[in-house]
Amino acid sequence: MSPRNILLLSNSTIHGSGYLEWAAQYIKEFLISNDVTRVLFVPYALRKMDDYAETAHKKFTSWGFELDSIHSAENPVAAVNKAEAIFIGGGNSFQLLKSLYDNNLIEAIRKRVLLEGIPYIGSSAGTNVATVSISTTNDMPIVYPPSFSALALVPFNINPHYIDADPSSTHMGETREGRINQYHEIPDAPPVLGLREGSLLHVTGQSAVLKGLHSARLFRPGKLPEEFPLGTDFSFLLN
Amino acid sequence: MSPRNILLLSNSTIHGSGYLEWAAQYIKEFLISNDVTRVLFVPYALRKMDDYAETAHKKFTSWGFELDSIHSAENPVAAVNKAEAIFIGGGNSFQLLKSLYDNNLIEAIRKRVLLEGIPYIGSSAGTNVATVSISTTNDMPIVYPPSFSALALVPFNINPHYIDADPSSTHMGETREGRINQYHEIPDAPPVLGLREGSLLHVTGQSAVLKGLHSARLFRPGKLPEEFPLGTDFSFLLN
Ligand SMILES: [Ca+2]
Ligand SMILES: [Ca+2]
Repeated sequence: MSPRNILLLSNSTIHGSGYLEWAAQYIKEFLISNDVTRVLFVPYALRKMDDYAETAHKKFTSWGFELDSIHSAENPVAAVNKAEAIFIGGGNSFQLLKSLYDNNLIEAIRKRVLLEGIPYIGSSAGTNVATVSISTTNDMPIVYPPSFSALALVPFNINPHYIDADPSSTHMGETREGRINQYHEIPDAPPVLGLREGSLLHVTGQSAVLKGLHSARLFRPGKLPEEFPLGTDFSFLLN
Repeated sequence: MSPRNILLLSNSTIHGSGYLEWAAQYIKEFLISNDVTRVLFVPYALRKMDDYAETAHKKFTSWGFELDSIHSAENPVAAVNKAEAIFIGGGNSFQLLKSLYDNNLIEAIRKRVLLEGIPYIGSSAGTNVATVSISTTNDMPIVYPPSFSALALVPFNINPHYIDADPSSTHMGETREGRINQYHEIPDAPPVLGLREGSLLHVTGQSAVLKGLHSARLFRPGKLPEEFPLGTDFSFLLN
């Protein structure tokens, strides 16, 4: 059994609230209960990495944690190998995944999280890359990664920022649900959990509990989508 | 100078109207003025290709044209080589582009359209693949194409189904404009024309005129986005 300790956030900021504020209590408890004092931040999903690291640094130090950004490390793999915990922030999933591959971090992070159980926090694109693949990202393919396969810290996919169709809209582009259904026409595509803004999945070993503000929508190939309330244990997706 | 004859539609169906109906007059005139009687349809952007070809067949025959679907051809390259005109429909841009590569059609279509000037109609994903790359698609990356580079029938990118930010929305996922701006942080990214639903670009040689129902929004690296009215000749983007 994997000793995993993972917090997968749909997004960083909800309307009318500051950066990560909606998830502050979850993140602090998660880090404290795992005896973490220092977090390794991965800002690869945005291009202005100095600014991004500064934003994350301010927030985490205000909560009483130290934070180093991997983009300032001389050897990113070594930084992962000695990290107490990893936080991968949002931005563009293609750029993030490409940078993880370019810096040889896929296997390094997998090993630390899946075998050694160091805490992993992902938000938005950082949640996409924690799953089987980035095939259910909402981002534009602004750079070409060597694969869409991702860290596979969990054996399913997530659609962050999941949003219901607006019945009053006259826009004809595919709905989010329609896009996920297209994905499920691909043979062997995994389940997709639609995680609404202000929601997170807390994975501990073989449990995966929905927390935050909203129910989640689960899509499985050949089945109708299903709503699951807060507090649901999605451990059945981990088998 | 390329003899190109290209009609790039933002989308196939607008709210409250039938398949391709909003563009019927443009498509008919385009085909008739180019002496086309028979169209080669490319249904690769959807997986249910028989159904998709049937929908297109019904519409084009109702307008008085013959239509063959490339997915029924024994040799897709030969079908392109003898086509009078090509219509590539919408769906998923990743799946469409991958199928074009898998069937060795990129160079074949480029040659027919750019050198021999056969009429090309694209809609939605069929418009994305006509541009430099699919980097400004709205679709999910459900399959992995060998490249994001596309047919490059025009030397810029298009964002089909372009939609303005809704000021009343509380959703925090990136706006369409924000996503295009992220793309423009990538070195050497080309201009992006945001084509709203119910709009098309009619390219004839060195002219590229905006037609249909709405103004378009042009994004260029390092510049503020600009609105251009119906009737604008975007020939400056062709140089
Ligand atoms: Ca994003
Ligand atoms: Ca589409």
